[in-house]
This record gives sequence, structure tokens and C-alpha cells, in this order.
Amino acid sequence: VARAPAPLDPAQIGRSRGTLAVIGIGPGDAAGRTAEADAALAGASDVVGYGLYLDLLGPALDAKTRHESGLGAEEARARQALDLAAAGRRVALVSSGDAGIYGLATLVFELIEREARPEWRRIAIDVVPGVSAMQAAASRLGAPLGHDFCAISLSDLLTPWPVIERRLAAAAEGDFVVALYNPRSEQRQTQLGAARDLLLAHRQPETPVALARNLGRAGESIEITTLGALPLDAVDMLTLVLVGSSATRLLPGTPPRLYTPRGYLAKR
Amino acid sequence: VARAPAPLDPAQIGRSRGTLAVIGIGPGDAAGRTAEADAALAGASDVVGYGLYLDLLGPALDAKTRHESGLGAEEARARQALDLAAAGRRVALVSSGDAGIYGLATLVFELIEREARPEWRRIAIDVVPGVSAMQAAASRLGAPLGHDFCAISLSDLLTPWPVIERRLAAAAEGDFVVALYNPRSEQRQTQLGAARDLLLAHRQPETPVALARNLGRAGESIEITTLGALPLDAVDMLTLVLVGSSATRLLPGTPPRLYTPRGYLAKR
Repeated sequence: VARAPAPLDPAQIGRSRGTLAVIGIGPGDAAGRTAEADAALAGASDVVGYGLYLDLLGPALDAKTRHESGLGAEEARARQALDLAAAGRRVALVSSGDAGIYGLATLVFELIEREARPEWRRIAIDVVPGVSAMQAAASRLGAPLGHDFCAISLSDLLTPWPVIERRLAAAAEGDFVVALYNPRSEQRQTQLGAARDLLLAHRQPETPVALARNLGRAGESIEITTLGALPLDAVDMLTLVLVGSSATRLLPGTPPRLYTPRGYLAKR
Repeated sequence: VARAPAPLDPAQIGRSRGTLAVIGIGPGDAAGRTAEADAALAGASDVVGYGLYLDLLGPALDAKTRHESGLGAEEARARQALDLAAAGRRVALVSSGDAGIYGLATLVFELIEREARPEWRRIAIDVVPGVSAMQAAASRLGAPLGHDFCAISLSDLLTPWPVIERRLAAAAEGDFVVALYNPRSEQRQTQLGAARDLLLAHRQPETPVALARNLGRAGESIEITTLGALPLDAVDMLTLVLVGSSATRLLPGTPPRLYTPRGYLAKR
């Protein structure tokens, strides 16, 4: 759905050198955005993104042409942003979290390489990083990402499940703290349970796990549980699942805290 | 070295409930800081940190009491921040990058748990996330963190080398993009070569590697090379080494770009 669609003049395509900023807006609230993201948004003539993310930006989008699309339409969104920039516009393509971590930036470069369109190659592209969901969750929990960690997407829509299984097994073997993105959806119900079982092969059932949902947005919630008791049904696409390593500790208190020591004190 | 040391009144310790914000300031420039980090700095009475990082903050520290310390003095810094907060001050403890990713946040919680001092337990603690070095590097390179990745510190000062070796082997086996923090220092010259060899057991010598140094600061540099040709001597403690997965691609151009596809197009 495009509101106030920009008039694209085909005669201009490839003539002027537009710009494309692929912007990570962080968890969603203005507090979590960098000054660089704000400046890139302010300088844009056109903003392209999933409707919910554009709504989160509120007044930052005043006087800009909005191009909204639905949740699954990543490729259409990236193409539209490239076409607008090729026509000379100053385009902001909005990603939640960090645009480079499970965001839209990589899709933009993939499209440019595969399609080899000269007018896309001329676009000046900036990727603006942001606070990813695992970081927003970690900061509210304490410091669970305080030592070595990995990020794994459980979505097998675009990655074969055996590749994901191999990564989960390696993460378990390497005793990494693990951030699970895209853990579960209406269509994908089995992956999170399988991930839990692969991790349990190397980790105690008492290993702390955090479920962080909608951080920085309305309805934010965060829950600490264990790997053995992981409530699969409480997890959806908006949840980030953070699984501790063997060293991750739960510090009781109000609020309770999770942290993974670097070992500063252990050495003494 | 403490400039303008704060007068600590022992009679106040444990009486008032001070605050401690452990703040990730991102790569270094103001553009890379979140609004939340700026607000936390603005609200602080006292700022504790490594001198270089405090210098990066410039005018944001006007009218605040600065407590500087040297590069290696992490524990002393965290203790000082806790003591000041316990005395009722509003303390900002400054970390580069993300305070929760190889930053000072985890050390604060470790000290609180180990030492069980009631006056530290009463402190209201906020962790403020920020853009970590791997994200700053990735955004300038394109989107090398576009799919599953892990972060590994090569410092064996606090972690036994066999644990690090096991993580490197797992990262290689799992075909993760790998961000290597603390890759090399004057005292630690062998770890990066050993890491390269462990990764080469599962990855082609042509695998792209990026060396990012001093991003967001004076003297910033970024270089793209390969795993087989990795110039060990060009790497120091200020360098972030980013090693591609088997899927990471180099897109020639000005500038050249690195990206790791999620597979959106591969599925068609």
C-alpha cells in the first residue's frame, strides 16, 4: 500500500544520482535511534518501509513522501527504494533494529549484484547501523552478551533447515550465548523446540533463557525462564529468544539480572 | 588518573540511592550515539571512563565531574562508579561501542554479585546499548552481518586459550560470519594467526575479510582482504576483524561492498 505515491518520471531514471540510506531505527522508540539515523531520516525526500515501522517514526516523517508496504514484502520494498533513488530522489529505506542484522541492507546489495542494472549501480548508498533486538533485550536484562555470542535466525523460509541445524549444533558445541531471531510464527511451529533440543545436548536444563517481546514499543515484555522450561507457546515472531552460555548467571533482585562474565575476576 | 576527584563522603554511602548508567557511546563520534545515551550522559553528575573515551564525548561532559582512568583499569573503573553511585551520585560509566558487548556492564554485575555489598545492591542500574564495533564496520562495508554471525574475543588474558580455540572451531564448523574482537596486541601476537588457521580448516583462502580500525574516530581506516592473505602485522587492538562466511560476497565498485545474503533471491 503506497500512500501519496511519488510520481516516478521514467525519463529521469539513470540521469540524476540519487541517494539511498538504509536505516536501522533500533527497537522502535526515538530514544533508541542514533543521531546519524535521525539525520538520515531528516534528509530524505522519500521514506520506504513496513507500515508499522513508519508509524513508529511518527513526526520524524512529516513532510516526506511515505511508501508503505506489508510485512512480507521485503523484496518489493528494496526494489522500490532502488528505483526511487535511481530517479534522483533522496530515499530512506527503514529497517527495524540494525539495518545490517537480519535487515534490508543485504537485500539491497544482493539485488544490485544480481540484476546488474546500471541505474542502480550509480546510487550512492549509506547503511546506518542501529541497536538490534538482541542488544535492546540484553541492556534491559543486564549483560547477557558480555562474552562471546552468536545470532541465528530460525526462519527456514529462505535458509534450508539443515544449515540452521548445523549452526545450532555448532553454537551449542562452542558454548556461545545464542540470540535466536525469527524463532516462531504461525507457519513455523517446530523450529524453536528443535533448537532447544540441540542446545540441551550441550547445556544444562537450568541454563537461563530470556524472552523479549516488542521492546521499545507498546506492550513491551521481558521474561526470564530456563532452557528446560522454555514455554514454546509464549514465543512468536515479535519475540527475541536469548539463551545463556554455561557461564551466564542469574543475579536475583528487583529486577533480576542476567550477565555473562568476561572472567575479569575469575582470574584472580 | 582522576581529574577533579569527587569528594566521597563515607557517611553518605548506603544512605541515598544513587544511580548508575552504564553507557555504550558507539564508535566514538556524536552521530553514532543514541538519544538514550545522550540523555543518560546529560543527566549524570559524574562521568567515569577511560580518558580517550571521555575525550571523544567532548562538550557532552561540560559541567560534570570527570573520573578518568587508564586503558587496563576496568575493574577499578567499575568499582569507582559503584562507590560513587552508592554515595548518592548520578553516575555515567562510559564504554565504547555497546556497553553490554565486551563492555563494562557485565563487570558491574559481576562485582555486585561477588562482593555482596548492600550499598551496591541498592543502586538503580541502567544499561544503555550502543552501536558495537562490528556494526560500525559492517555498515561501512555494506552488509556482511546480513545473516548468522558470531562474535569472539581473541584475548586470552581472562579466558583460557582452549576455550577460545573451541569457539573458533565451532564458528568455522557452523559457517558463521565471525567478528573477532581484541585480535592482537603487543603482548598477544600469536592468537590471530591461530584463529585464521582454525577458520581455514573449513573456509576457502579467498573468503573475504575486512579490517576496520578506529571507526568513528580520527585516523579511521577500513581494508578488505582475504582469509588466506590476512596481513597479521596490520592488525592491532584497535582493529575489528570481520571474516566472511562461505556465502559472503564481494561486490566490486566504488566503494567495494561486502554482503552476506539472507537468501531472499536464492529461493526463487
